[in-house]
Amino acid sequence: MHKIVQQGSKSLIESRIKRKSLLSKVVTDVSQLIPYFQNGHYVSMGGFAGTGYPKVVPIALADHVEKNGLQGKLKMNLFVGASVGPETEDRWAMLDMIDKRYPHQNGHHIRNGINSGRIRFADQHLSTFASDLLAGYYTLDKPHGSKRTMDIAIVEATEITEDGCIVPGASVGITPEILQMADKIIIEINTSLPSFKGLHDMVKIALPPFSKPYQITRVDDRIGLEAFPVDPEKIIAIVESQLPDNTSVGAPEDETSSAIANNIVQFFIHEIEQGRFPKNLLPLQSGIGSIANAVIGGLSKGPFDNLSVWTEVIQDTFLDFFDNGKLKFASATSLRFSPPGFNRLFNNWENYKSKIILRNQAISNAAELISRVGCIALNTPCEVDIYGHVNSTNTMGSKMLNGLGGSGEFLRNSRISIVHTPSTRPTKTDPHGISCIVPFASHIDHTEHDIDIIVTEQGLADIRGLAPYERAKVIIQNCAHPIYKPILMEYLETSRQICLKNHMGHEPHQLDKAFKFYTNLSEKGTMKIDKW
Amino acid sequence: MHKIVQQGSKSLIESRIKRKSLLSKVVTDVSQLIPYFQNGHYVSMGGFAGTGYPKVVPIALADHVEKNGLQGKLKMNLFVGASVGPETEDRWAMLDMIDKRYPHQNGHHIRNGINSGRIRFADQHLSTFASDLLAGYYTLDKPHGSKRTMDIAIVEATEITEDGCIVPGASVGITPEILQMADKIIIEINTSLPSFKGLHDMVKIALPPFSKPYQITRVDDRIGLEAFPVDPEKIIAIVESQLPDNTSVGAPEDETSSAIANNIVQFFIHEIEQGRFPKNLLPLQSGIGSIANAVIGGLSKGPFDNLSVWTEVIQDTFLDFFDNGKLKFASATSLRFSPPGFNRLFNNWENYKSKIILRNQAISNAAELISRVGCIALNTPCEVDIYGHVNSTNTMGSKMLNGLGGSGEFLRNSRISIVHTPSTRPTKTDPHGISCIVPFASHIDHTEHDIDIIVTEQGLADIRGLAPYERAKVIIQNCAHPIYKPILMEYLETSRQICLKNHMGHEPHQLDKAFKFYTNLSEKGTMKIDKW
Repeated sequence: MHKIVQQGSKSLIESRIKRKSLLSKVVTDVSQLIPYFQNGHYVSMGGFAGTGYPKVVPIALADHVEKNGLQGKLKMNLFVGASVGPETEDRWAMLDMIDKRYPHQNGHHIRNGINSGRIRFADQHLSTFASDLLAGYYTLDKPHGSKRTMDIAIVEATEITEDGCIVPGASVGITPEILQMADKIIIEINTSLPSFKGLHDMVKIALPPFSKPYQITRVDDRIGLEAFPVDPEKIIAIVESQLPDNTSVGAPEDETSSAIANNIVQFFIHEIEQGRFPKNLLPLQSGIGSIANAVIGGLSKGPFDNLSVWTEVIQDTFLDFFDNGKLKFASATSLRFSPPGFNRLFNNWENYKSKIILRNQAISNAAELISRVGCIALNTPCEVDIYGHVNSTNTMGSKMLNGLGGSGEFLRNSRISIVHTPSTRPTKTDPHGISCIVPFASHIDHTEHDIDIIVTEQGLADIRGLAPYERAKVIIQNCAHPIYKPILMEYLETSRQICLKNHMGHEPHQLDKAFKFYTNLSEKGTMKIDKW
Repeated sequence: MHKIVQQGSKSLIESRIKRKSLLSKVVTDVSQLIPYFQNGHYVSMGGFAGTGYPKVVPIALADHVEKNGLQGKLKMNLFVGASVGPETEDRWAMLDMIDKRYPHQNGHHIRNGINSGRIRFADQHLSTFASDLLAGYYTLDKPHGSKRTMDIAIVEATEITEDGCIVPGASVGITPEILQMADKIIIEINTSLPSFKGLHDMVKIALPPFSKPYQITRVDDRIGLEAFPVDPEKIIAIVESQLPDNTSVGAPEDETSSAIANNIVQFFIHEIEQGRFPKNLLPLQSGIGSIANAVIGGLSKGPFDNLSVWTEVIQDTFLDFFDNGKLKFASATSLRFSPPGFNRLFNNWENYKSKIILRNQAISNAAELISRVGCIALNTPCEVDIYGHVNSTNTMGSKMLNGLGGSGEFLRNSRISIVHTPSTRPTKTDPHGISCIVPFASHIDHTEHDIDIIVTEQGLADIRGLAPYERAKVIIQNCAHPIYKPILMEYLETSRQICLKNHMGHEPHQLDKAFKFYTNLSEKGTMKIDKW
């Protein structure tokens, strides 16, 4: 049984570096590494969804900036598979150390930097991000060096194998891709964790015209390497880390998420009865966050056995799902557990390890594989419109939350695409001030063509095979909050009347009124408009 | 050398039916088949992009409805891979014979029926449509019989092989899928065409959990059958057809499309120089329509050799591309040639046939394969907004044109995604009344996450790796018409100013003004607003 190791020592890091020629690269004084980072550099980090990211060096850099008043003078372009811990990217943002940041983020300061025009950010599908990065699409305008490389990559590892390959920690993300494309590499070996060797399956992605099929047909198929090769000449330092992934405990299941989960369970039972799903369903994908976590918790209590998971991120409730014997296997790119969740993992390591594979995000989120294994996709949006267009990223059309992450890849390519949201959210002055069902989404990340099922605590709308007007009626009737139903129905029926008169009634809208929910919200703190 | 056969005879159809036991199914009096079609039936037809569709039986049904005043009394639900000829779906629409129609269409009457609320239509990604049809997503509410079948399928063939398999004509579309799922099958053998045997590569699609990798890595790989099996007990009739595919000659290249093509050629040259594309590019995909056709014509005059094509539809200009020796191979699901184009094809049949494969649309448009071969996607939208969201389907947000077809699958999954459009289109009163670059697209089919390059006759915007505000500047400066540039820049800068003040400036909008182009167009016949 593995335990979290409490204390470092020279022998500890040496025991994790099986390639002895690399021992000479061990650096104990991290301040020596500061000069490698220059203003304007292109920097990559490993990590995904706040785990498996490097900590010691990013924190040392932040300390250096803070101590020397270098805010805004050491700004770097930061590329990570998804979000990393608040002590790294969010502190960097607070210290004005980030110019560009792609393709996902999480934290108060970084979000504020993006929405204040200080940080240049764009969200991108996560599997495509990895391959576009390799193809040089994010380094087109790099003013120095090769236009196909990163200046420096920092990755967390839990072991370096005898043949000099890297065993990551609790996530894979884009670690394989940045190890290939970085000019210089720093490895943080986290000796507070067990070696994760055997948990990962990493692939060296080939771009067209050299791409080959990913020969995966089941969630537990392996096609890659348990440790990823790295050019030893590129390694400029190996640093010991004992810092844990800085995660928190998610919100517990509440009445709303229980009602959502129950609606989903009832739908699954119906689909099995109709012969459209096998009895053990199809591999589940679940988004990140507390509603998604609670929905998985609800499903784990449902009447389904012998389940599998093909997803991005494994959260705490999956442990219950394993423990009750209903979940057989899970494939992802990241383990994002709370601190007690990680303790559960490490205390029953061999058992859980045999049921989990972590892959490159280019694999976990590949359209090819999501489609082939036939995921059931479950994701939480900000809002859904009456025709089934979904906003996952920008509130009020303009304000970035975190980015779309893998939601687009899963909602587009899964066998069935489900979005779940509370029907309303509170504002400061109105407990139902924001309707999550709106006439026209203020930003669209996923279109009507990609969504099959919409679920709120009010009910479930099955919009498969429905024309837009039919879709709108079922979404409003089944999913909208009772306060908003008559308002939305009036918009729909008036729009239809006007548009049919003008022979443009396929997807009826009144463009002069379509965004009235938002202008009312800005002015009066609620989407409850007095009249159209 | 094959010629179009001018006249039918019993011996002609018999020579195409190599499975002699099926000769007993030949029906010469088509009126016998009318009673098989009932009000409310679920009917499928082969065909894609107006070729390879059945004609004799659909026309006989239309004649029957017209002659007997049955308009609105014999309404069917019609499922075809994409559009078919005007004498079939459009005449059916004119005679009020269509209730539901998925997932694409073309024609004045059918479009009018959809926009007048008479025909229930929804557009859908074309590969997903084929698999969702098999999964029963379009027959959920079928009130009679199995909820996983079509009542009747009609397909065009050019031969029935000795083992009773179907050789289609000029398209594959969803023919393999509907042959599997129809209760009854009618085959129209078109003896005016040569047998197309050897041109097709058809796959029996397996849904999850039984899906396997499509073992295609090159555009000319074959993984399927040249003739598709059909259960002989389901065949209720075999009918001879001598009706040609009812296509027309596309608009010739004009100044605008030449300028667009030239901008694209220059971009390709630059990408090759930068090492991001191989010298022979990557497989080209091209949308349907006259601009796309002209762009391919322009590319065929470009300095590129040894090219390949992985697309949906092969149009006339591809023949020039083959003839000048620059195009080596093309994979698609449909040949949509003009009548002179088909004559060119048939007059040099063996030569062209060796360079073309037609596949199921579930294969030609599969995310897996578009991504693996690494297409260069080229598609024509209705409009693009300043942040790169694309409308391909609904003008003024509400009025359906044809449907998104495969544009979503290609723009999402290709190695690089290019949309090309004139910068403006005329209205009745203003030659530049409609700007194709708008503040906020009135309908969104493809999001900012899917688009790399936008091209108009004005120039090319490379938005890879750009944050929204940067993207907007380059799109407006490089692509908008000079008349609209200052108007759009004012919207952008004012929106940014307001949003930054409110710390919501990631993708700046003014939602109360975002659709003002459209309200102005409705009221004054032009998007040229006097002021914001």
